[in-house]
Amino acid sequence: MSAATHNPCSKLRVQFKPVDGGVTAPLGFRAGAISCGIKNPEATRLDLALILSDSPTVTDAVFTTNKVRAACVRVSQQHVRSGDARAIIANSGNANACTGPQGIQDAKAMCKAAAEALGLKMREVLVCSTGIIGMNMPIQRITPRVAELAGKLQPKGGDEAAQAIMTSDTKPKIYAIEVPLGKGLSFRVGGIAKGAGMICPNMATMLSFITTDAKVSKDELKRAMRFAVDQSFNRITIDGDTSTNDTVIVMSNGQASAPAIKKGSPEAEIFRCALQKVMMELAKMIVSDGERVTKFVEIRVCNARTHSDAKKAAEAVAKSLLVKCSFHGSDPNWGRIIHAVGYSGARIKEELIDIYFNGLIACKGGLTSKTPVSDLEKVVREPRFTVTIDLNSGNAVHNVYTTDLSEAYVDFNSSEYSAAVHAKRQKGLV
Amino acid sequence: MSAATHNPCSKLRVQFKPVDGGVTAPLGFRAGAISCGIKNPEATRLDLALILSDSPTVTDAVFTTNKVRAACVRVSQQHVRSGDARAIIANSGNANACTGPQGIQDAKAMCKAAAEALGLKMREVLVCSTGIIGMNMPIQRITPRVAELAGKLQPKGGDEAAQAIMTSDTKPKIYAIEVPLGKGLSFRVGGIAKGAGMICPNMATMLSFITTDAKVSKDELKRAMRFAVDQSFNRITIDGDTSTNDTVIVMSNGQASAPAIKKGSPEAEIFRCALQKVMMELAKMIVSDGERVTKFVEIRVCNARTHSDAKKAAEAVAKSLLVKCSFHGSDPNWGRIIHAVGYSGARIKEELIDIYFNGLIACKGGLTSKTPVSDLEKVVREPRFTVTIDLNSGNAVHNVYTTDLSEAYVDFNSSEYSAAVHAKRQKGLV
Repeated sequence: MSAATHNPCSKLRVQFKPVDGGVTAPLGFRAGAISCGIKNPEATRLDLALILSDSPTVTDAVFTTNKVRAACVRVSQQHVRSGDARAIIANSGNANACTGPQGIQDAKAMCKAAAEALGLKMREVLVCSTGIIGMNMPIQRITPRVAELAGKLQPKGGDEAAQAIMTSDTKPKIYAIEVPLGKGLSFRVGGIAKGAGMICPNMATMLSFITTDAKVSKDELKRAMRFAVDQSFNRITIDGDTSTNDTVIVMSNGQASAPAIKKGSPEAEIFRCALQKVMMELAKMIVSDGERVTKFVEIRVCNARTHSDAKKAAEAVAKSLLVKCSFHGSDPNWGRIIHAVGYSGARIKEELIDIYFNGLIACKGGLTSKTPVSDLEKVVREPRFTVTIDLNSGNAVHNVYTTDLSEAYVDFNSSEYSAAVHAKRQKGLV
Repeated sequence: MSAATHNPCSKLRVQFKPVDGGVTAPLGFRAGAISCGIKNPEATRLDLALILSDSPTVTDAVFTTNKVRAACVRVSQQHVRSGDARAIIANSGNANACTGPQGIQDAKAMCKAAAEALGLKMREVLVCSTGIIGMNMPIQRITPRVAELAGKLQPKGGDEAAQAIMTSDTKPKIYAIEVPLGKGLSFRVGGIAKGAGMICPNMATMLSFITTDAKVSKDELKRAMRFAVDQSFNRITIDGDTSTNDTVIVMSNGQASAPAIKKGSPEAEIFRCALQKVMMELAKMIVSDGERVTKFVEIRVCNARTHSDAKKAAEAVAKSLLVKCSFHGSDPNWGRIIHAVGYSGARIKEELIDIYFNGLIACKGGLTSKTPVSDLEKVVREPRFTVTIDLNSGNAVHNVYTTDLSEAYVDFNSSEYSAAVHAKRQKGLV
């Protein structure tokens, strides 16, 4: 069982210090939220958030690869191209997806209202939505409230913004760190996210907004973003099951005491790793808070011929229904794991495969090990454990994070659309 | 909503007449089964089957594409190359997979015992196993009983053979037809199968044995086999999740009254369609009897740019957890369907997509239709319905058969391995 890893951040010697505030932890960012009655008609839950950098930014974003893209994604993709977006308006309760030209008009109206309230250009505002697909936005209840929302922006508003983007999440996802660079200099990175939908972002969408006061160039930010997303959010969206709305945005305003980060410098690597750290913590929160999840499991494939082989094997295991069911039942069913490795498309030799539950070997060279099943069961009964699949065929590694599949998940996901339509019809909202 | 189809059998004018007997319906085939205590230690359930053609055959088989292959698959792959295998010995209760050199030895021992009892060469016997992975076969309880099993072969033994290959199946799967060719001439095709494991064959494996008394050449049989498997079993194994043991075998002995089938003749097409008919009926029985399934749903994608696009879209929808959960809850959640189409990799235009539940349109041009949700719910509440996804981008079609995902499925699949190991340990069987 090799401990080889290909993530350079594991060797980094800088201490990241967790701090409060999420997206408002870095200097010069404010946030706020209100309830417009999008999520529930009684308007008791926050459902509209605004995040603003007080000064110009360098901004980058990655969007869903789904070919069915929400109206807000289409509008934000246009706006982000300008590279200087410095505000995000985001709602929960309605995804503004499969809403046609009306949806585009609504997404633009949200940007326009925010731009007017904040004295910005429209292209400086990004818009995100999450919630049910296929229903028009209750835009008449949103745009008239945006000026009020802008008045609520405050330097400690990160918590409220995190709450306002929740859908089936049971808790807000918020994380921030301070990164000391020596000589009293430092920068901060903070973020919020929403997820749920078990592990592949549900139609309910994966959203994450990251802010930093580090001073980075557009190019450096793009590089860091690509690296950090690949190491974090892409390890939990495990089967290409990206939703219509998935969006990750990073805004940097350069207000920190630390000097500008130079390409190829040690600080550039520290910045990439800090971004990865914040995204990884948020990604883990998303998995742990997956719909009706009772187990958090790391699937780690090592000693594969190539990284592509490691990835295929890890993802096939992580998304196998039968494997996830056995995790739920605390069943150390390594047969289902090797079976998934077998159909994953990874180049493997059955007789070389070892499978471990935490440190305990369950399968040795493709055959059942001598470890007593009761010992293996002890591991799988834990709420968190690691399955290591050693292919003994090379030295490539890949890991992904998955969950069990519970009866409650099925129940929870069996009547969303009807329930939503009926609820809204009863309230006269559609 | 186009009715275009690319299956030539839909235009065939020959009437297939269902008959009893399964694999023993065609002339010259006998079958039998006994209980050896592989499936349950009390040996109350049939778990060892034998099928024999009394005369030489032309035989073909397709096996799992999983890179982890059971010992029986490896041995049968060698034997089937000879092309004249005329007996099948098959057990349930143990898959003989991940069992190393001992497994190969056990699979060969089963062939040898059958060959000796039947006066055949070893290569004339194929061996199949289905059941739990990773445990050695209780071979000492099998081989000594094979002579007794051979004595039980009878021309009406198809039903017993079908029972003996069941694992989590709730009913045996058996089907046969007589194919009249006019002038009193005819041939028969019969088969048995086992499936369960929801829709992708579980580790419990998909097995199907088909017999025919039609007189066909090796080449013609191969062509017909490829066509029929593609139109049937490959439409239910929807995500490449083939098990370690999946096997389909066709044996033809030419004892029918009908003359030899010539390449390119109308009879060749009739033969292909007859084979497809038997496989399709067995495939549908497998889906309907999937573990704890309450719905049988056809996913039909039409007017795709290419067949590959249609296939990708249909398979993504058919295997989506969220779609399957919504079927279970009788929720006409077309948003989840279009979402799955969007990430399927198929080339689509969102604004062209129409989605129907049976004949009722739920989504028109990517937007919600005017059909009342209560009308759509009526369709989805049925135990059988069709979801049609019209991509309006070409004229290619593909359909697959899927099921809902129930809480009971999760429960049923959550502790197989532990339970099996503990049960066997308690009985002193491992």
